[in-house]
Amino acid sequence: MNEFELIEQIVADLGASACAPWVRVGPGDDAAVIAVPAGMELVATIDAIVADVHFPATAGAALIGYRAVMVSASDLAAMGAEGGYLLVALNLPQGDPAWVAGLTRGMAEASAAIGVPIVGGNLAAGPLSITVAAQGFVPAGQALLRSGAEPGDGVYVTGELGAAAAALARGGLGQCASVADLDPLSARYFRPMARMDVGRALRGLARSAIDVSDGLLQDLGHLCDASGVGVALDSAAVPVAAGATLQQALTGGDDYELCFTLPPGAEARLPALDVALHRIGEATAERGVWLDGRQIPAGGYQHFHS
Amino acid sequence: MNEFELIEQIVADLGASACAPWVRVGPGDDAAVIAVPAGMELVATIDAIVADVHFPATAGAALIGYRAVMVSASDLAAMGAEGGYLLVALNLPQGDPAWVAGLTRGMAEASAAIGVPIVGGNLAAGPLSITVAAQGFVPAGQALLRSGAEPGDGVYVTGELGAAAAALARGGLGQCASVADLDPLSARYFRPMARMDVGRALRGLARSAIDVSDGLLQDLGHLCDASGVGVALDSAAVPVAAGATLQQALTGGDDYELCFTLPPGAEARLPALDVALHRIGEATAERGVWLDGRQIPAGGYQHFHS
Repeated sequence: MNEFELIEQIVADLGASACAPWVRVGPGDDAAVIAVPAGMELVATIDAIVADVHFPATAGAALIGYRAVMVSASDLAAMGAEGGYLLVALNLPQGDPAWVAGLTRGMAEASAAIGVPIVGGNLAAGPLSITVAAQGFVPAGQALLRSGAEPGDGVYVTGELGAAAAALARGGLGQCASVADLDPLSARYFRPMARMDVGRALRGLARSAIDVSDGLLQDLGHLCDASGVGVALDSAAVPVAAGATLQQALTGGDDYELCFTLPPGAEARLPALDVALHRIGEATAERGVWLDGRQIPAGGYQHFHS
Repeated sequence: MNEFELIEQIVADLGASACAPWVRVGPGDDAAVIAVPAGMELVATIDAIVADVHFPATAGAALIGYRAVMVSASDLAAMGAEGGYLLVALNLPQGDPAWVAGLTRGMAEASAAIGVPIVGGNLAAGPLSITVAAQGFVPAGQALLRSGAEPGDGVYVTGELGAAAAALARGGLGQCASVADLDPLSARYFRPMARMDVGRALRGLARSAIDVSDGLLQDLGHLCDASGVGVALDSAAVPVAAGATLQQALTGGDDYELCFTLPPGAEARLPALDVALHRIGEATAERGVWLDGRQIPAGGYQHFHS
């Protein structure tokens, strides 16, 4: 199977996952054509996952594909975006049609789960990595930024934290071939859920938001830096996933939950959501990240160290 | 220098290359925010270049960065798009600040040359590759597709073909450290020019367009397949770059010129352009690619072979 046949297979396997009312031209031309709905601005982000750095290459291809999409889509959620489209660049050591079909199935499933179609891509020979550029729509001027937190805001996170870090610490992720092999910890690693519904609900209410990809303390540190505030956290309020430690919940990456701030009184105006929200602390005028009254360094995951 | 410091350096080095009137939020948040101008649709594409597959890793970083941007932007040109924005995902074996600064300089120069800002990116540890997602704006309904050619259309290419293939065949590209080391052949390899001005001028005139990335015969084959036509080419009319052979001009990739079809009479309505246009043949009702009356197989570069 040559490159073009493999691309044809991918496009066929994507099926409805390449379609949406705003997609004028999908895969197959030099570029896709998208009609951004009236009144909407675009949010745009790109993320790459590299074999044996960000995922175990021996894991099931569908698990890898699902995770690749959600990692990028999580940034859309953090901006309060919906809809939009994905572009996927696959660097593959060889063009194994069965492996690519599995990857495509996982990507298509994730794409359908968040309502963001895959409209184009690229296939290149090279060490295994998957890059997803994700774009979403948000009403003009309503994108959630990192920079709007104010002292006195409540600091919240969605869901539970630490499960993905616990799964990594336990090991064995490379032996997961399919969804049937996943327990609650490994499911959180391979099948994070980009919180698109939460992000949408936060528009006009949250003053700032970020997704938890590098670890809660690290990502909150970025939010505080952008906003010019500090944060006082209550460790007892941090939602630690079953099987994880508080340390993993505070510093583990890969959970892809949302962290955001709400001004006083805003929480009561949120609609009902499918995921629990936890108030873990409060933004402060004094800079720095404080846990139970003690200042701590931001200590999340970094890809490069000096 | 850690990951975040390296990202700060990149954003500082991008400077004005991250800005445009339609960029509401540039690098630094979870995602960029873009206001697509009224009446415009978006075209969107992604391409990756992998070290020692699509470029020699030992070449100068600025040369590599320039080429990475132009490879993706060429698809925007082929759609008749302008403006828009780029997202860049860098997979780097190590975070060498000097190398990254050179790469950024090359990307920024290319970005400025085509008027498309770099608004976001990702940095990951991994084997060296550079992925660029490129988006452009085109008036609604005016994107140039591959699928509109009709029998009797003239078939055209811009510029000259074969120089990049001749440079690859000659070798030594990995010894090119900077622009000062380039001769006309290696300059065409490292510094292709996405034909944005031509694409824009072709809106409303050309019936179909594609960029020449895999080789003229191969890419014309895709255009013909999409349009349901054939093409009769006159080899004497193919603009062969000085130092290249006709074979290189017909089958060599990497030139990133545009190939397009115009209905009879349309050529006279084109504005003056900075690059020469060459009428190399005519679209036919009979399918297939024909050269001087003999049918030939599409024979361009393929990344994977069965």
